[in-house]
Amino acid sequence: MTNLNQPLGGNEMPRFGGPATMMRLPAADSAAGLDACFVGIPMDIGTSNRPGTRLGPRQIRDESRMLRPYNMATGAAPFEHLQVADIGDVAINTFDLRDSVRRIEAHYDTVLATGALPLTLGGDHTLTWPILRAMRKIHGPVALIHVDAHADINEHMFGETVAHGCPFRRAWEDDCLLNEHVFQIGLRGTGYSPDDFDWGRQQGWTVIQAEEIWYKSLAPLMERVRAAIGDRPVYLSFDIDSLDPAFAPGTGTVEPGGLSTWQALEIVRGCAGLNLVGCDLVEVSPPFDPSGNTALIGANLLYEMLCVLPGVPQTNDRKD
Amino acid sequence: MTNLNQPLGGNEMPRFGGPATMMRLPAADSAAGLDACFVGIPMDIGTSNRPGTRLGPRQIRDESRMLRPYNMATGAAPFEHLQVADIGDVAINTFDLRDSVRRIEAHYDTVLATGALPLTLGGDHTLTWPILRAMRKIHGPVALIHVDAHADINEHMFGETVAHGCPFRRAWEDDCLLNEHVFQIGLRGTGYSPDDFDWGRQQGWTVIQAEEIWYKSLAPLMERVRAAIGDRPVYLSFDIDSLDPAFAPGTGTVEPGGLSTWQALEIVRGCAGLNLVGCDLVEVSPPFDPSGNTALIGANLLYEMLCVLPGVPQTNDRKD
Amino acid sequence: MTNLNQPLGGNEMPRFGGPATMMRLPAADSAAGLDACFVGIPMDIGTSNRPGTRLGPRQIRDESRMLRPYNMATGAAPFEHLQVADIGDVAINTFDLRDSVRRIEAHYDTVLATGALPLTLGGDHTLTWPILRAMRKIHGPVALIHVDAHADINEHMFGETVAHGCPFRRAWEDDCLLNEHVFQIGLRGTGYSPDDFDWGRQQGWTVIQAEEIWYKSLAPLMERVRAAIGDRPVYLSFDIDSLDPAFAPGTGTVEPGGLSTWQALEIVRGCAGLNLVGCDLVEVSPPFDPSGNTALIGANLLYEMLCVLPGVPQTNDRKD
Amino acid sequence: MTNLNQPLGGNEMPRFGGPATMMRLPAADSAAGLDACFVGIPMDIGTSNRPGTRLGPRQIRDESRMLRPYNMATGAAPFEHLQVADIGDVAINTFDLRDSVRRIEAHYDTVLATGALPLTLGGDHTLTWPILRAMRKIHGPVALIHVDAHADINEHMFGETVAHGCPFRRAWEDDCLLNEHVFQIGLRGTGYSPDDFDWGRQQGWTVIQAEEIWYKSLAPLMERVRAAIGDRPVYLSFDIDSLDPAFAPGTGTVEPGGLSTWQALEIVRGCAGLNLVGCDLVEVSPPFDPSGNTALIGANLLYEMLCVLPGVPQTNDRKD
Amino acid sequence: MTNLNQPLGGNEMPRFGGPATMMRLPAADSAAGLDACFVGIPMDIGTSNRPGTRLGPRQIRDESRMLRPYNMATGAAPFEHLQVADIGDVAINTFDLRDSVRRIEAHYDTVLATGALPLTLGGDHTLTWPILRAMRKIHGPVALIHVDAHADINEHMFGETVAHGCPFRRAWEDDCLLNEHVFQIGLRGTGYSPDDFDWGRQQGWTVIQAEEIWYKSLAPLMERVRAAIGDRPVYLSFDIDSLDPAFAPGTGTVEPGGLSTWQALEIVRGCAGLNLVGCDLVEVSPPFDPSGNTALIGANLLYEMLCVLPGVPQTNDRKD
Amino acid sequence: MTNLNQPLGGNEMPRFGGPATMMRLPAADSAAGLDACFVGIPMDIGTSNRPGTRLGPRQIRDESRMLRPYNMATGAAPFEHLQVADIGDVAINTFDLRDSVRRIEAHYDTVLATGALPLTLGGDHTLTWPILRAMRKIHGPVALIHVDAHADINEHMFGETVAHGCPFRRAWEDDCLLNEHVFQIGLRGTGYSPDDFDWGRQQGWTVIQAEEIWYKSLAPLMERVRAAIGDRPVYLSFDIDSLDPAFAPGTGTVEPGGLSTWQALEIVRGCAGLNLVGCDLVEVSPPFDPSGNTALIGANLLYEMLCVLPGVPQTNDRKD
Repeated sequence: MTNLNQPLGGNEMPRFGGPATMMRLPAADSAAGLDACFVGIPMDIGTSNRPGTRLGPRQIRDESRMLRPYNMATGAAPFEHLQVADIGDVAINTFDLRDSVRRIEAHYDTVLATGALPLTLGGDHTLTWPILRAMRKIHGPVALIHVDAHADINEHMFGETVAHGCPFRRAWEDDCLLNEHVFQIGLRGTGYSPDDFDWGRQQGWTVIQAEEIWYKSLAPLMERVRAAIGDRPVYLSFDIDSLDPAFAPGTGTVEPGGLSTWQALEIVRGCAGLNLVGCDLVEVSPPFDPSGNTALIGANLLYEMLCVLPGVPQTNDRKD
Repeated sequence: MTNLNQPLGGNEMPRFGGPATMMRLPAADSAAGLDACFVGIPMDIGTSNRPGTRLGPRQIRDESRMLRPYNMATGAAPFEHLQVADIGDVAINTFDLRDSVRRIEAHYDTVLATGALPLTLGGDHTLTWPILRAMRKIHGPVALIHVDAHADINEHMFGETVAHGCPFRRAWEDDCLLNEHVFQIGLRGTGYSPDDFDWGRQQGWTVIQAEEIWYKSLAPLMERVRAAIGDRPVYLSFDIDSLDPAFAPGTGTVEPGGLSTWQALEIVRGCAGLNLVGCDLVEVSPPFDPSGNTALIGANLLYEMLCVLPGVPQTNDRKD
Repeated sequence: MTNLNQPLGGNEMPRFGGPATMMRLPAADSAAGLDACFVGIPMDIGTSNRPGTRLGPRQIRDESRMLRPYNMATGAAPFEHLQVADIGDVAINTFDLRDSVRRIEAHYDTVLATGALPLTLGGDHTLTWPILRAMRKIHGPVALIHVDAHADINEHMFGETVAHGCPFRRAWEDDCLLNEHVFQIGLRGTGYSPDDFDWGRQQGWTVIQAEEIWYKSLAPLMERVRAAIGDRPVYLSFDIDSLDPAFAPGTGTVEPGGLSTWQALEIVRGCAGLNLVGCDLVEVSPPFDPSGNTALIGANLLYEMLCVLPGVPQTNDRKD
Repeated sequence: MTNLNQPLGGNEMPRFGGPATMMRLPAADSAAGLDACFVGIPMDIGTSNRPGTRLGPRQIRDESRMLRPYNMATGAAPFEHLQVADIGDVAINTFDLRDSVRRIEAHYDTVLATGALPLTLGGDHTLTWPILRAMRKIHGPVALIHVDAHADINEHMFGETVAHGCPFRRAWEDDCLLNEHVFQIGLRGTGYSPDDFDWGRQQGWTVIQAEEIWYKSLAPLMERVRAAIGDRPVYLSFDIDSLDPAFAPGTGTVEPGGLSTWQALEIVRGCAGLNLVGCDLVEVSPPFDPSGNTALIGANLLYEMLCVLPGVPQTNDRKD
Repeated sequence: MTNLNQPLGGNEMPRFGGPATMMRLPAADSAAGLDACFVGIPMDIGTSNRPGTRLGPRQIRDESRMLRPYNMATGAAPFEHLQVADIGDVAINTFDLRDSVRRIEAHYDTVLATGALPLTLGGDHTLTWPILRAMRKIHGPVALIHVDAHADINEHMFGETVAHGCPFRRAWEDDCLLNEHVFQIGLRGTGYSPDDFDWGRQQGWTVIQAEEIWYKSLAPLMERVRAAIGDRPVYLSFDIDSLDPAFAPGTGTVEPGGLSTWQALEIVRGCAGLNLVGCDLVEVSPPFDPSGNTALIGANLLYEMLCVLPGVPQTNDRKD
Repeated sequence: MTNLNQPLGGNEMPRFGGPATMMRLPAADSAAGLDACFVGIPMDIGTSNRPGTRLGPRQIRDESRMLRPYNMATGAAPFEHLQVADIGDVAINTFDLRDSVRRIEAHYDTVLATGALPLTLGGDHTLTWPILRAMRKIHGPVALIHVDAHADINEHMFGETVAHGCPFRRAWEDDCLLNEHVFQIGLRGTGYSPDDFDWGRQQGWTVIQAEEIWYKSLAPLMERVRAAIGDRPVYLSFDIDSLDPAFAPGTGTVEPGGLSTWQALEIVRGCAGLNLVGCDLVEVSPPFDPSGNTALIGANLLYEMLCVLPGVPQTNDRKD
């Protein structure tokens, strides 16, 4: 344990100083030797409305500076069990979305080859498709917990198949998903037809619309999710716009009537015990929240993801 | 159906382009031939604290650009049933509040004469009084669902009878309201005496203070409201400051402890089946929410109002 | 009653004009002759992350301008029962934290000597320690209701014993607290070890973590608190970061998953009947909420504290 | 000198604390006994584009907190020669522009009757008309130095004669001005016809368009102005939108290509030696500059006005 | 003249209301029958640093609402001489930069076929390349006045030939430019080598670096430019980042030490008499200037471009 | 040259990605082996008005991401001549200003012992005093070019000798300065007496008030400065508030009438040829400029400082 990386503590360097890495962890050039790694994908060219998620990884890292190592709610102490570092950003090609997707997949091939589990700082949601493609090469099709305001299963947007509204349709086409173990949570808003949400249901996916879970603890839902998924490899993709804009104003395709941070924390904490193989937190757009709080929430959720990775004990009784 | 106006879709023009009309609908010079119309009233000279609602209609229209035609929660598809357009703004006299009130009434006389049902983008709450006066000429006194942090029944403010804290007192004096069918929802905060809320009760109005409905689904309340109002003509006036400032920071007379967007959506969706004759969404003040999210929520609520107008089927089971 | 100070009303001076004192009350040079007084402590040199609370008292006063004298929820009319004024700010030494602490204690010694009950506008949380020291001289150890995201019981921060993360450890060392009657509400987030919250429990304190009270009315909790404390002197310290950042974005050490304003109002209103001897509202950082809404919520909570002071009847039935 | 009011110094109270009066001067209930007084007029109902100047006086006062008593450039030490206080705000009627104008005139009648010279914190430019009407009763028609992007001599706006684009036309009609001694400086932008600027010229006014003075020191211009006006009573009306938006972004009717702060300071400092009878600084709109810097510049210009009042020696050589 | 489109005036509709078209002109479906047209290109996928210019056309139109028809500085009255309308936006493909470039060129082919002269609201600078390609088909190679902080002549960026740093290199390759009559004004900042600016010089272009023109009127420069270009067809491309960030904070690739608005106005006004065949104003990024002032300056510059089009007399003596 | 550190280029990683070090240079643990190093001092506890400079180093680094290696104005190519890295932040004690000063001095002792020349990212101006103390041990008393709105030579502030208004008084007391070679540029605003600026003059310092240099190129001034200083060791301390708030809004003690970025660049570029031994850029306060532009200007000025260090040739003719 003594040789595991630790976040730089506030008693060594004021929180507002020190390296602007995720949680002020050491930077690493590659994922080799790591159990888990934070990776940034500074991309917004897949977005269809407000831009800005290209600046997401930088602001998430900046606002992660307050995160201390121990999870007061769950008792998780991830840095006592996992070797973790921040391996920097994927060099996307900001002038070519399709090339960026290729670059992301190649990058994750390399990361996954080391055995490290990636926690991704987005970036727009397009990025989940190439990650899932890389995942499939290692794990085969995976279960999916997809938290979002939108289903992101469009056949195309403006005639294009690569866009932030399409990643899960593409992943499905590429046979990346265990259809009976796909859960979409928080969907809502306006669309073009019932198929926007029902298409997934037709593939066997479980779709939980936001309206079904208003005012409620999501602990029972997550218990059901865990029971269904069992020990299958599972990927967690968390779009910050799943949250109501009250809780996460800094994002691009805002839909009122969303989840609360209480529910968001329950969802991530409710993943403890699953066989997580990767996680992402996407769609934080800094220009639309100059306070930094949306990024800060994103940073916290990424930390909570780290806390539920395989190998990290939850010492407190599950509250959910 | 084929000749009904449709919002300009995201597959034809990126969401961040195209006309800055409500929902990127066609602009129309008048309400003639329409079933429903969006009207802006760019006014803030009736406000008593922070200004800015004069800029509300422009920002609501701008932020309405993401709205797609189909309501994923209720199954409503308003543009398959109603001819709708954006008929622009009322030319208020920004240097004279009383003249502005006269101009609004005259404008709505013209709109109502066409048979079109107006959905109003405010603007400060003063505007509901002249609209209700115009309504009365067509419908007689109407039932009222008034969602707000404030009762807005002041006899006067600073000695004046025309102000954004007085519209419902004036409407009552003008015999515009069916007193047994007036519902005020969300009232709270500080006042001068119990009469601030009790005056309405003395007229037979039902006043639901915010504290009574915290943490709760409002579906049961709306069921009660619908049962009481029956098929009487009813006007819906929705002040965005009914929402807690967490959900709607961009407004002028903020009161903590308010409604959530979950409740706001339930209120509007709970109007399905009523004989709505007009709706307004008031008090969005853009300078106090540069993110645009308060206006975006306002735009969504206006769309939800459109979805519950008479003639628009709700194909999904009522969740409330 | 006729000679009690009244807030300047909106019918005499528009809300956006008049003196920028708390609630537009008269300013006073000292607390002599007052039952309760508002005091500002413009300090942020005890903060460990984002600064800005030095500007808190000014913005809280500015945004208090909408507050009317009567509490619509509880029926409290404090200005009919108490002589209240705004006695201005403590002249802290912004270049020396320890000297500032001494100055605060000396200032409160003077205030308390007059018999007036102080309601403090912070400022960072360091300030509660010297206030509690002054309180002890008058009241002996007091019960404490501490609403916060953090326990603030660090033995030291960066080797220092005076900091905004330490006030309650220092107050405990100074025997200012009735340990069996200390309640910490809203704690959450990340820490260094379980002791961050358990140390208080080991002293006999009651610690209610945020997760335990999500989605719930806190009226039952406050009933329990009241029963436990009885008529003992009790101090209320309310850190605005106890609220979820959705509700109070303008603060320095943000932790998602916090309280709602609904709960915050229930906590303060739930103090009615207690023998309150002082209250503070701390950690509002204006630069991180340019809308002013966080300060406005702080101003409302301070008003609600005034409404539950001994001697102010609650004429409405307790809703909690 | 020892009994003259002094601004509260930074060595007695940190700059970010203390009373939010102009320069942290004592507040006074009336102008009686004062040589000069700061008066606020919190009004924006005369504005034709962006609102917000109603909040101007409060933010100007707040941002005046850094002002120290001595003018490093000119050697003026106004508080050694004049008795000065902040006499608070005019209670305008925010729901009725014409009544507000009447109230302002009546208020200034009272102020001027005391012999105190008023320095006004606006508020929109409508306010200068009633002030000039009050001035005329004491001084007869006055010379005028009017610094602005706009001529503000519209016969009417939207059919109205009272508006922020009309004050100098009204003052001219009311015979308040010495036409041969009216100077309009900084005019520019778009209009309806050449008459927008030429009408004044036809009355004998001197109009200096912004383009004529770009890149230049205005000391020579002010020398010419002083020579022309001589010892006639003169009023200085300074619209912050005379400045280029780079220098003063927080205003309502922005015109690029304006003055710099260098020129603004030269204009005000160039008034030393004139027989000033009153000054105003108008059109600061806080919501459009959350940094507070526009208000801060306004506060500095008001201080500079104080420094050139009759009776305040300029001990440094005139740099202009 | 009576049948020429006029901007909607402030005496008919308050400035903050009415259609959000450029200058509140009539919207038109095509350029047919127009002398000049405003066109929006809502694009930012060619940007290399901060995003947001996709929102530029909407905010420029919104902030153009204050523009009156007559130019007070130059006496130009464009709407008395030209038929002008706002023909809306180009439907770019926001997921594919190369396809967007093709779409822009096709759109301008259509516009230019009508004989209307396009004034373009950007959008990132990539868009000038396809416009120049369309121009060439009508006019052959054109002279160019290019105002910018950057030369935008990169051979490639991140290996790509289409990007906002490359349009003039591409236009050069496509033989769109009269090399002896290309003027680049305002270049500055950091680069990779002297060639960043010297490459253009090697092609015969005139490059005026910002440092050469600090503190100076640019009237003499523009006289030189006019003399050199004579009556050749000339295109004006104005990147708002040519301005110093003090004057135009809302842009993506900021370089300090830039032009002032005084100089910007002189440049555009100095184009009077040239045979302008098209103009653009690019790189306004709304999220980085919530005040709207950068967009407002952009709107003013577009209006000034309209004022110097062939056929619009300048009735005032040239001040430059 | 091939083994010198280079900033990460935009063709390898998009500008909005990559490490958030200064100019995206490699991070280093110490200054050993470096010719020059960037050091951050995240401190604001020495500030007397608005806080926030503790966040300065992080935002300056973030906004430095656009800086390319070659200086287009001067031809300097520092990374071809110097080994440069970012050595991170000084761990100040944010709860104790005096201890922080000790820590800074100790840190710079270590840095200077390596022979590396430090370029400091502030942080409030207090920090220059301990740096000058460390400098003295190596270089003896040094010449000083101090660019600022304030003289910062207070004997004390609020009774304290350590504060951001005192560093040069303390440095003078500690015999750190060559009095005949101290230049203070840009001073202005309000003060307590003429001594605020004259005290320095009495020590033999040259004080250039802002008013003396308005509208002017500072190249002649810098020529004079260079002639006077000759080859003496010289320290450059640049307070961003020397700039007019138009150019640098994000700072704490704003004074209108300041320098332009044109002048700021001339000052730094005018240091070429001097024997610089260290430089700092202080008082950037991010919360007061959410656009990031003030930090971006600070980053540019730091780069310009690097460009004039001894050993970096200026290949272009000096324009000043």
